[in-house]
Amino acid sequence: MSKSGDTSFRQWDADTFPGHRVVLGRDEPLRLDCGTGLTNFTVAYQTYGKLNAAKTNAVMICHALTGDQFVAEPHPITGKAGWWDLMVGPGKPIDTDRYFVICSNVLGGCMGTIGPQEINPETGSPWALNFPVITIADMVRAQVMLLDHLEIERLFAVAGGSIGGMQVLEWAASYPDRVFAAAPIATTVHHSAQNIAFHEVGRQAIMADPDWCGGEYQNEGRNPKRGLSIARMAAHVTYLSELALQSKFGRRLQDREAITYGFEADFQVESYLRHQGSTFVDRFDANSYLYITRAADYFDMAEQHGGSVADAFRDTPVRFCVISFNSDWLYPTAESRVIVNSLNAVAANVSFAEFETSFGHDSFLLNVPEFHRVFRGFLNGAADHYGLPRVGHSGDAL
Amino acid sequence: MSKSGDTSFRQWDADTFPGHRVVLGRDEPLRLDCGTGLTNFTVAYQTYGKLNAAKTNAVMICHALTGDQFVAEPHPITGKAGWWDLMVGPGKPIDTDRYFVICSNVLGGCMGTIGPQEINPETGSPWALNFPVITIADMVRAQVMLLDHLEIERLFAVAGGSIGGMQVLEWAASYPDRVFAAAPIATTVHHSAQNIAFHEVGRQAIMADPDWCGGEYQNEGRNPKRGLSIARMAAHVTYLSELALQSKFGRRLQDREAITYGFEADFQVESYLRHQGSTFVDRFDANSYLYITRAADYFDMAEQHGGSVADAFRDTPVRFCVISFNSDWLYPTAESRVIVNSLNAVAANVSFAEFETSFGHDSFLLNVPEFHRVFRGFLNGAADHYGLPRVGHSGDAL
Repeated sequence: MSKSGDTSFRQWDADTFPGHRVVLGRDEPLRLDCGTGLTNFTVAYQTYGKLNAAKTNAVMICHALTGDQFVAEPHPITGKAGWWDLMVGPGKPIDTDRYFVICSNVLGGCMGTIGPQEINPETGSPWALNFPVITIADMVRAQVMLLDHLEIERLFAVAGGSIGGMQVLEWAASYPDRVFAAAPIATTVHHSAQNIAFHEVGRQAIMADPDWCGGEYQNEGRNPKRGLSIARMAAHVTYLSELALQSKFGRRLQDREAITYGFEADFQVESYLRHQGSTFVDRFDANSYLYITRAADYFDMAEQHGGSVADAFRDTPVRFCVISFNSDWLYPTAESRVIVNSLNAVAANVSFAEFETSFGHDSFLLNVPEFHRVFRGFLNGAADHYGLPRVGHSGDAL
Repeated sequence: MSKSGDTSFRQWDADTFPGHRVVLGRDEPLRLDCGTGLTNFTVAYQTYGKLNAAKTNAVMICHALTGDQFVAEPHPITGKAGWWDLMVGPGKPIDTDRYFVICSNVLGGCMGTIGPQEINPETGSPWALNFPVITIADMVRAQVMLLDHLEIERLFAVAGGSIGGMQVLEWAASYPDRVFAAAPIATTVHHSAQNIAFHEVGRQAIMADPDWCGGEYQNEGRNPKRGLSIARMAAHVTYLSELALQSKFGRRLQDREAITYGFEADFQVESYLRHQGSTFVDRFDANSYLYITRAADYFDMAEQHGGSVADAFRDTPVRFCVISFNSDWLYPTAESRVIVNSLNAVAANVSFAEFETSFGHDSFLLNVPEFHRVFRGFLNGAADHYGLPRVGHSGDAL
């Protein structure tokens, strides 16, 4: 694949875009935390299942840093199964026979929602770094506008892992009357210094790539794939536990009997990481990576609520299921306990489950049957309470 | 500082080099693990204290990845105190009133010992990637040749942390009759998949920099500073504990009252990391970084000894003090326990101490009084046993 001229991974125009897109902010702009307003901006989203007549069975799924709206169907670029295919579908924990699932590409993303790689109508050029720096709250504001567009007053549930979990917390804190149940998974109320540090390494790797061109790579017919690939590699190490890497790769060599005394990928783990980096750049935009990591670094529930996370949830009617994984060192269980303790401090309805896995942060994406069973139980119990009719298999598994 | 033309951080020629250098391998080449022989190669080293008449008080210190021979004196480039100034000097734990301390720049390094940035006499050009890929054992072979040159038959002790600790293990395993006491600190018998992964991220960052020029940057009048800086930033995160980063920086902002909604270093931790990256490139060579990380990844005591670490030390006369730090997540205490258990399995003379610190892997370089006290005690006790005369303060502190 040639580097120059290869300005975008997106093969579609408005007519061929594989999924739903809607223009929002026609009447009222989206007011961003930075002070700017966004008008007439596109949000891309997918849905699964059927909205009931009373519009009470909607579940909003919030995706993580490099996820997108293709939750439970083949990805239009990679052809791989949807990123939460294990979780979402008929008879699955988020049962599309019972629920109507919505997932939109986040603000600042690169799968059809407005972001730095989209054209700025005022200039006719890609926004690039002129795109306003957005926050997790801004992402949720765009999701609220999508919900208004779909004329859904209240979500039955909102769920998501990692940076998606931050959006879940923001939904519950800022729109408590529009959410019945919330499941923040493998997430945190703010980034630690170490979290920011790893993101900063990735951002610097992108910005150090001469093909980044100060962010103007699209106009220059270039693409900072090498920098983005390094960013992905560094981040990927944080998504897996040490044990997962060790049991998956250990010190095993890649297609060779002995070390080669060179700088090729002698070790399987090197080959794996290089592959992770090089395939990622075919489906993700470098500037989007800057914007979304920045939004995650800026997220700080205490700071947004007068210094107290608990104050974000005072008198909340939302019922919560907080979930963590013991092998997650990116957002360890201690971070979920902060959420749980804050919710308990305001007598919120909260359950908490930590699951034993060896996979690390990525556990929320993987086959962890106990997690899926508990999650199914939480949703079905809440749905019964909410008065959503059962379907054939709603009582299964718990 | 201009990038092009800025081919080297070294300001010295043979006449102005700040320290000792010796040409080794004049008669007998150094036989490298890769199969090549090195002849007439330079090793740079520093010494502290005075060799006694019987030549029995020598302590070899082995430096870590980015360390060098300037252990206990101002660094000739940065002007900062020596990297183990807390440990080495008159009256200090490695007491230069009692011991004669030697530290040489490792093979493949960039502070005067032969490495990829030195001129290959056969071509008249820098070695670059034509320099043979070296191993930890090769580094130690060069140190042995230096010892022969100094006409020292046996070391009283060998000590070092991190990759220096690997060299200590290699000394004890391969030259048991030339070492009385060995202190491997904050180290491991081999890299885990995660260790290799982080090193590989750094190497890829260097090799992705167009100024790397396939390794030939010196000939091209360029210097891959951006890539090397990214590598340093990624590695630096692994040298500190999460707690250290959190207490040192947390989410505090850098010289500003509020986030700027941009990509400047809003957070102190970002500013710190950028500084770590940008200052590192003034004192280190990118190809050296590739070679030394590779040597560390290749190091595997079990693999070198028929699958058993214990077999590396069978019947060893060496007495060991193995040291780890509870906050070190790069080479956690469990890695030191593997060393201790292997030594116990062959009934070696071994003591083991884990120190509680919050600093992470870098603890071995920092002010950890209990570590220094115990280390002083180990050395002094061994020295008494070895028959080295006491000096005024040898009995202190324990």
